[in-house]
Amino acid sequence: MSTVTVEALLGAAPAHIAAVGVPDFAEVPRTAGADVTALDWRPPASGDPELAWKLAQLTAHARVEAANAEAVSRLLAVRPVWRDVLPAREALPVLDDRVSGRRLLLHAGPPITWERMCGPMRAGVIGAALLEGWADTPEAAERLADSGAIDFEPCHHHDAVGPMGGITSPSMPLLVVEDPATGRRSYSNLNEGAGRCLRYGALGDDVMDRLRWMGGTLAPALREALKALPDGVDLRTVTAQALQMGDECHSRNTAASMLLLRELAAPLSRTADGPEVIDFLADNHYWFLNFSMAAAKLATSAAAGVPDSTLVTAFARNGVEVGIRVGGLGDAWFTAPATHIRGMYFAGYGPDDANPDIGDSAIAETYGLGGFALAAAPAITGFVGGTVEEALRITRDMARITLTRHEAYRLPMLGGIGAPVGIDVRAVLDTGIVPIVTTGISHREPGIGQIGAGLTHAPLECFRKALEAFPVPAGEELVPAGGVPA
Amino acid sequence: MSTVTVEALLGAAPAHIAAVGVPDFAEVPRTAGADVTALDWRPPASGDPELAWKLAQLTAHARVEAANAEAVSRLLAVRPVWRDVLPAREALPVLDDRVSGRRLLLHAGPPITWERMCGPMRAGVIGAALLEGWADTPEAAERLADSGAIDFEPCHHHDAVGPMGGITSPSMPLLVVEDPATGRRSYSNLNEGAGRCLRYGALGDDVMDRLRWMGGTLAPALREALKALPDGVDLRTVTAQALQMGDECHSRNTAASMLLLRELAAPLSRTADGPEVIDFLADNHYWFLNFSMAAAKLATSAAAGVPDSTLVTAFARNGVEVGIRVGGLGDAWFTAPATHIRGMYFAGYGPDDANPDIGDSAIAETYGLGGFALAAAPAITGFVGGTVEEALRITRDMARITLTRHEAYRLPMLGGIGAPVGIDVRAVLDTGIVPIVTTGISHREPGIGQIGAGLTHAPLECFRKALEAFPVPAGEELVPAGGVPA
Repeated sequence: MSTVTVEALLGAAPAHIAAVGVPDFAEVPRTAGADVTALDWRPPASGDPELAWKLAQLTAHARVEAANAEAVSRLLAVRPVWRDVLPAREALPVLDDRVSGRRLLLHAGPPITWERMCGPMRAGVIGAALLEGWADTPEAAERLADSGAIDFEPCHHHDAVGPMGGITSPSMPLLVVEDPATGRRSYSNLNEGAGRCLRYGALGDDVMDRLRWMGGTLAPALREALKALPDGVDLRTVTAQALQMGDECHSRNTAASMLLLRELAAPLSRTADGPEVIDFLADNHYWFLNFSMAAAKLATSAAAGVPDSTLVTAFARNGVEVGIRVGGLGDAWFTAPATHIRGMYFAGYGPDDANPDIGDSAIAETYGLGGFALAAAPAITGFVGGTVEEALRITRDMARITLTRHEAYRLPMLGGIGAPVGIDVRAVLDTGIVPIVTTGISHREPGIGQIGAGLTHAPLECFRKALEAFPVPAGEELVPAGGVPA
Repeated sequence: MSTVTVEALLGAAPAHIAAVGVPDFAEVPRTAGADVTALDWRPPASGDPELAWKLAQLTAHARVEAANAEAVSRLLAVRPVWRDVLPAREALPVLDDRVSGRRLLLHAGPPITWERMCGPMRAGVIGAALLEGWADTPEAAERLADSGAIDFEPCHHHDAVGPMGGITSPSMPLLVVEDPATGRRSYSNLNEGAGRCLRYGALGDDVMDRLRWMGGTLAPALREALKALPDGVDLRTVTAQALQMGDECHSRNTAASMLLLRELAAPLSRTADGPEVIDFLADNHYWFLNFSMAAAKLATSAAAGVPDSTLVTAFARNGVEVGIRVGGLGDAWFTAPATHIRGMYFAGYGPDDANPDIGDSAIAETYGLGGFALAAAPAITGFVGGTVEEALRITRDMARITLTRHEAYRLPMLGGIGAPVGIDVRAVLDTGIVPIVTTGISHREPGIGQIGAGLTHAPLECFRKALEAFPVPAGEELVPAGGVPA
């Protein structure tokens, strides 16, 4: 009987044990009565020796650190200001089918062809074709797409973002967000509200009527009202206030939407269609989502293209694949199959009905919002599932894979620290912690719409592929103790 | 050397000591290296043996417990609904000087004569006399009051409440809050906004112009807009949502005010003066305070008059005295000198400029809001002073002097537990913990206005007097283990 038992190892005295790695490691001594602290540790680079060596070479690399410092500083310097509402064909001339004769639609996520699109995105294409008068019936719209007569490009390739399917067509109004210091602009379509919406893949007269009203009534009224605000609306201020009021500005936008309404209500009430526009805005608790996304896009775009930076500058899903872009890796997308969502479902629906993760809205997470600011929104756990404790833990976890904290976006339940911002590909691979996303759930079949909301994550594979593609910069000097050399 | 030292008592082993009472008790063993838990204990009834015996007789007394259960159940059953806006003379005919020929003004707090009124309340009287046309100049208004030609009664004597000076005159508009189940109503004047306001004792053309605009434009527009909401506005729902959004609904009303604006903006935009009314409401972050107070007044009024109940049904200050009323003690006020406020001051002002605690707004605290819900409003510590930790601790302390938790008013930072509601005179005397109030600070001189905001408390003396006056109900059976007998 030479087996050394846990009990023998522990002896009589109370023991304090730190168990590292596999959760089961902690269970045996814990069962034996020891006080065990389980450390959530995973081997760097998923235990892949080649990738681990790449990671080691990039860690504390002076040029990478300097590049990331530059990228993060550009991201934080952006002041996103809502300036205008314009038809997409005016904001983005590439969409102007009257000029080009080309039928182009923008979509969420990394590039995808019509043939590979998921149900809700196909429904978005059908609705857009009907809206633009390219087809008279859903069947005709589908045949048109089958014939190859419609081109598709990601919103992200045109400084734009769109939640869920993200389908954006020439006549749809876009909100215009601008950084006053640089004049750089970003765009998003307008939020349709809750219930049956094209972005979730719903189709029908109600959906089409609302889209026509948004182009014909809502957008002109907003444009008119904005003239009363010559400085526009500072979305950084709105976001900062909303984080103090229970929003994380991805899946909860209740406070931020009210703050926008408060700014616009008086000027809107002076426009002809003011009352019905105010009615629509007062009912739409997701109204700010598209502003949050456009602001995030503007900030991460400013940080894109910095050579040697490992900062994630885009994170988007097309319902089939998830893709990320990385500062030092140009316009390339690093993709993996779209994940499933752990969430809560509307009555009558369940996980088997759900489309995998979809939409450009995860850009919010690259800007310190959504899952990264989950600690700001304890109430959200009521409809995405989970507990308040989990919300706090997720934000703390996200701080382990980000480069900094947002100076303006402070989290009251974590003592006012800034939201973790700036996802670092290296940190994701080093810790094995993946970005957490709060998101809505579309039905997988076209024509139905939203069926729930929940939490999901960016697949580790995207980050692994990006790290594999990342060249180790010339010069191997390490960052000296004390930080980045001047 | 027979003195037993702390060190000798402790010996070599680490000691765990609980130190009860005077904070210094904890210091000696702590200095000696012991692990000391200091219990914040004070002798019941401030160590007064006679009062302690009264407290003992009332503790677990079956009739008191049953009375309090009834009172609290009435308080929680009230659903405060905003129904109307009416001139004070219509809402409260006692104020109609055209009918009675009597010049009556309502004021905050327990009864007080003109001679004893503090500066800001006297300024309120002067402003009201000018508004009503009872005098042409401030000097003439003062002479009129000096001559005894104006009567004064507390708002609380007429189902009404008013923040700070609380001066309410016949032509001022009152908001009307109603409990649909009983038809019971409560009233408050309307909030003037921030800056120079009559309620804080400011005087001048700007103040008077705003009051005239409120009566002539704001009130009729609100009344017209309310017609579009046949069920009125459910203030319990608004309050519950606002507590999830960083308000404690006494000194922070940012979210609640926006929620009211969201309800009213579209109907207001359909009225002739809609745009300027919306402008005013969008700028007034205190707009909801008067609704919060009227809702609290309605709920505590429903709980008043239950024989044998030790529930506090009113808590109000006139700037000279603080008074409370107690369920089983009829309409009597139990008063003590008004307290000073620990707060933060606007530039150029300090504690020497401050009037003592003033206003009916502490009714919010009797309804589980304000100091009792401070844990909902960490951001408030930025302008009333203190820390987030202190905010959490204050709410936890308030739970030690209240009879229950509000089922609808939940506190996200305390895991969603209900706000402590229903102050029990016995518990205040038993623990020595006094109700904490969040409040604004008036300049002590008439004519100036608000100079800061802070935290204060209800004086223990009010509760001591109430307990002294409280008759021990006949029958001395104690509550059996298991609760109140059916």
